[in-house]
Amino acid sequence: MKFVEGGVVAAKGYKAAGVASGIKKNGAKDMAMIVSEVPAATAIMTTQNMVKAAPVLWDVAVMEKSPVKRAVVVNSGNANACTGEKGKADTEATAKKAAELLGLAPEEVLVSSTGVIGVPMPMDKVLAGVELLVPALGDDADHGSDAAQGIITTDLTTKTIAVAVEIGGKTVHIGGMAKGSGMICPNMATMLAYITTDAAVEADCLKKMLAKITQDTYNMMSVDGDMSTNDTVVVMANGLADNSLITAADEGSEAYDKFKDALYYVNEYLAKSIIRDGEGATKFMEVEVRGAATKADARTLAKAVIKSSLVKTAIFGEDANWGRVLSSAGASGVVFDPLKVSLTFASSAGMLTLLNDGMPIPFDEDEAKEILSEREIAITVVLQEGGEKATAWGCDLSYDYVKINGDYRT
Amino acid sequence: MKFVEGGVVAAKGYKAAGVASGIKKNGAKDMAMIVSEVPAATAIMTTQNMVKAAPVLWDVAVMEKSPVKRAVVVNSGNANACTGEKGKADTEATAKKAAELLGLAPEEVLVSSTGVIGVPMPMDKVLAGVELLVPALGDDADHGSDAAQGIITTDLTTKTIAVAVEIGGKTVHIGGMAKGSGMICPNMATMLAYITTDAAVEADCLKKMLAKITQDTYNMMSVDGDMSTNDTVVVMANGLADNSLITAADEGSEAYDKFKDALYYVNEYLAKSIIRDGEGATKFMEVEVRGAATKADARTLAKAVIKSSLVKTAIFGEDANWGRVLSSAGASGVVFDPLKVSLTFASSAGMLTLLNDGMPIPFDEDEAKEILSEREIAITVVLQEGGEKATAWGCDLSYDYVKINGDYRT
Repeated sequence: MKFVEGGVVAAKGYKAAGVASGIKKNGAKDMAMIVSEVPAATAIMTTQNMVKAAPVLWDVAVMEKSPVKRAVVVNSGNANACTGEKGKADTEATAKKAAELLGLAPEEVLVSSTGVIGVPMPMDKVLAGVELLVPALGDDADHGSDAAQGIITTDLTTKTIAVAVEIGGKTVHIGGMAKGSGMICPNMATMLAYITTDAAVEADCLKKMLAKITQDTYNMMSVDGDMSTNDTVVVMANGLADNSLITAADEGSEAYDKFKDALYYVNEYLAKSIIRDGEGATKFMEVEVRGAATKADARTLAKAVIKSSLVKTAIFGEDANWGRVLSSAGASGVVFDPLKVSLTFASSAGMLTLLNDGMPIPFDEDEAKEILSEREIAITVVLQEGGEKATAWGCDLSYDYVKINGDYRT
Repeated sequence: MKFVEGGVVAAKGYKAAGVASGIKKNGAKDMAMIVSEVPAATAIMTTQNMVKAAPVLWDVAVMEKSPVKRAVVVNSGNANACTGEKGKADTEATAKKAAELLGLAPEEVLVSSTGVIGVPMPMDKVLAGVELLVPALGDDADHGSDAAQGIITTDLTTKTIAVAVEIGGKTVHIGGMAKGSGMICPNMATMLAYITTDAAVEADCLKKMLAKITQDTYNMMSVDGDMSTNDTVVVMANGLADNSLITAADEGSEAYDKFKDALYYVNEYLAKSIIRDGEGATKFMEVEVRGAATKADARTLAKAVIKSSLVKTAIFGEDANWGRVLSSAGASGVVFDPLKVSLTFASSAGMLTLLNDGMPIPFDEDEAKEILSEREIAITVVLQEGGEKATAWGCDLSYDYVKINGDYRT
């Protein structure tokens, strides 16, 4: 596997664009489009929030009709959530406009929105934006970059990646872009990610892979469980790499595993990028739980630790307050014996064992401070309940988080 | 019902004391004792955290032997949690010392600790502190106040209350003290509360009442579900008011209801006091959910909103960002129809309807700012799914919360 340029246009047969339509008042890019030259097998994961934005309802409905899509239209600056019947009509009008200009059926177009909730979409700007996007489409790296800019909100940087991998003698590309930041840390992320590949993969197979990958990546960020009204992950596979079609029946084959691993890598990279750019984040935290009785226990416990505001503030303060880690683990609902727990804090500056089989290990505060002064902190919790493990990612909780979220709308 | 002085010594037959033993380095009071002249029917609720501090394990064990107690010893400054076998021996030694000096059996003495986790108890100071406490015992309001000071950690104020109520021609007193603040907002509160009454109440009845009251008060603070290693609520009833014994069989009688309502009031008051004094709190938030299909749904949804960092920061920033309220409700796991939801923000400065049957209602930003500039904010979420309701309390998330928790141990 090697890294390549281009993000969502790295794979054969994809074009993209990003433009400023005026939804964002500061003149920044606020719309993006991705188009596949040929019909692409598509999988999608959307928010489990009871309150689903209009574009999410549209995407779910058109995916039920057919898992083959051609285009995605995204706007940032307005989430089109809690906007009632008008919101639904606005999403449909956006898909229709894009379809008309691209020569497609509206049902071949997915729509996403992110931004403020409860404000009607400025449809004059959105429709004019679609008219700008179509002629702006292109397949070079600049166009991939433009699209990545069009989907971000309070993100400090765009998030893109693309890789190439040999599968059965053919070069397959997988590229992606994502946005997060706003509302990611610690909860209710509006998280959007779009992955394009030229691999030939059956839609059912893609759906199965994406469900599993989402559980291990996006759902293991500190956001999980508190999904926003708009969260969406889309994977399109147009088959132009000309590899032998990968199907669910191929599970365990070299081609299947190579593609799945590369797809996992791309999604994990994007998930971690979202966390690294969390609102006000000064630290990247990784919590690994090992020795759990079940996979579900490992996941629940890792997420409980990464979501704890007290753990987050301790890491922000570079304070080796391991009691908070143990206490948040104990409050997770997972059954374990505290007297068998071991716990370490580590970074590129070293590792500190704080608890061994339930007993605190005296440590040097200066050494702890040195380890915790690094930007990336790993917390490992080892139970002795079984052989399952899980990893969760999160960021610290800083003054800037409070500042950014204390006055988001103004 | 009327308010009286004295906190935990307001009821007949109770003495209390608070002293500085040196556990806290700043010389502040760090130990407290409550003693009943006669054996008292006692009920206790303790943390559900898998990681339970040594004193919690002691209290649970001695309560299993008998629900009749005589004394409580509390220390602040050290939680005696994650301290292994030594921690257990230290708690037992504390109970034994108090019992010896008071002429009781060790099993008649409950012990609580709060403070830093994972540090061995300074037992020379603790045992010397017990020796100071016993001769310092007294039954006037000053002694109640001393005890309330001995249990606090980062609390800005002590939390006490006492009421008198006529039951069957007798005057019954119920008094209490609590500590919270440290780790309360938004999670892993070390929350301690001690209630004393001279009412004659059967232990089983007291246990049943306390379980129900805890569910509606302490468990509806933003802390719930993330209990600390040390949370404890104790109610002692010594019967010296000479009322007819209240038993579980009396449910629905005037005496039962009067006592239960007064006990509820005292606990609700202490729970709210804890929230008002939350670390770094600038606002007090009350979230009421009405029209839920079940009581459990109402509780879950109210707690999901009150626990949301995004809601908390919006309230801190005095920003009427109602979308975050709806989104956190939608992410709670409770099933409801978003198109039937209504939502209001209110304070002493007025009320604002932001959502009516799922549709946003345009509002005046200046009016919203005026309402949200008050210190106490009420958020009401009305579903149309049934007739159940619940209320949760919390505080906002401020810069100071991050500051206090970023460097708690130093």
